[in-house]
Amino acid sequence: MPYIPLEEHLPGITGLLEYRRDSAKPIRELTQILLRGESTLTEGERELIATVVSSRNYCRFCTAAHTAAANILLGDTHTADAVKEDIGQAPVSNKMKTLLTIAAAVQASGKNVTAEMVERAKSNGATDREIHDTVLIASLFSLYNRYVDGLATITPTDPKFYEGLGERTTHHGYNRLPQGYDHLKHEA
Amino acid sequence: MPYIPLEEHLPGITGLLEYRRDSAKPIRELTQILLRGESTLTEGERELIATVVSSRNYCRFCTAAHTAAANILLGDTHTADAVKEDIGQAPVSNKMKTLLTIAAAVQASGKNVTAEMVERAKSNGATDREIHDTVLIASLFSLYNRYVDGLATITPTDPKFYEGLGERTTHHGYNRLPQGYDHLKHEA
Repeated sequence: MPYIPLEEHLPGITGLLEYRRDSAKPIRELTQILLRGESTLTEGERELIATVVSSRNYCRFCTAAHTAAANILLGDTHTADAVKEDIGQAPVSNKMKTLLTIAAAVQASGKNVTAEMVERAKSNGATDREIHDTVLIASLFSLYNRYVDGLATITPTDPKFYEGLGERTTHHGYNRLPQGYDHLKHEA
Repeated sequence: MPYIPLEEHLPGITGLLEYRRDSAKPIRELTQILLRGESTLTEGERELIATVVSSRNYCRFCTAAHTAAANILLGDTHTADAVKEDIGQAPVSNKMKTLLTIAAAVQASGKNVTAEMVERAKSNGATDREIHDTVLIASLFSLYNRYVDGLATITPTDPKFYEGLGERTTHHGYNRLPQGYDHLKHEA
């Protein structure tokens, strides 16, 4: 049971974002900019960064939600699982392997990112901006994972819930749904 | 040296917030809402939460910056240091001790927050909203600390730098300074 009163039909992050809408607004905006805004990384690649960090923080809600989004965006169901299992063996580009390695370092501590990791990313074609965004996305999910688990929010067990959530974030993004989209709200 | 090209006169978080202003905007807004917006926790108490998390992440820039802000807001220079040393012995209210204990748990993992910690906070007068905000502020500084250290930003060693930064964030808040405040920019 969550540590604070949250709407029962809104599990995980969704209830928290309704609990305090004023702080939710910039959190949603930051997520939309980083995961759906203009970038030379694809939306699927950015969802993999979110997935790797959430998985390493054992945040089941966030891991399932961003795995579902990555699956839809990448068009397969094995890449996200492979990346969670072993970045080095996953079917992603060498550049993405170096960026996911940086994200995995950030998950533990910003101090774990080494000059060698960054050099390897650059020599595999990563731009400064891609390195910046990787670190910031990994940092953002360090926030999300703690927010979701620190208040003991509910984690649905039905995979369909996350598929619905993934459909929503891939088609409608991370900003709050406008009025009239109430039929999508329970999937949010 | 930072891993990406940042303006040399803007160390720590300040250069990152200029590097990508579109993502900086919601980060600044969230910080302003949580640390300076309406709350039953004082601004000084909220800076102590930021300080405890940053200190436990060994983020020297963030620790010094928020210690300076806490010192100004609390009107002394020993409370923030005491809280970093030992929450239980620090000269803060029992309620704040329970909230800082929750923040310290969140620093390591959201999963480290226990029902007992939350119960203790509530029995010492903490409201649901204060518990929510403590977890979210601690989560936000889990983001900041990783962003600042993950890109190897510069950490000034002159205490005067942080005093200037503390003066700025206590008097002008965390949003971007409007034009015409350029004389404050180097302290930002």
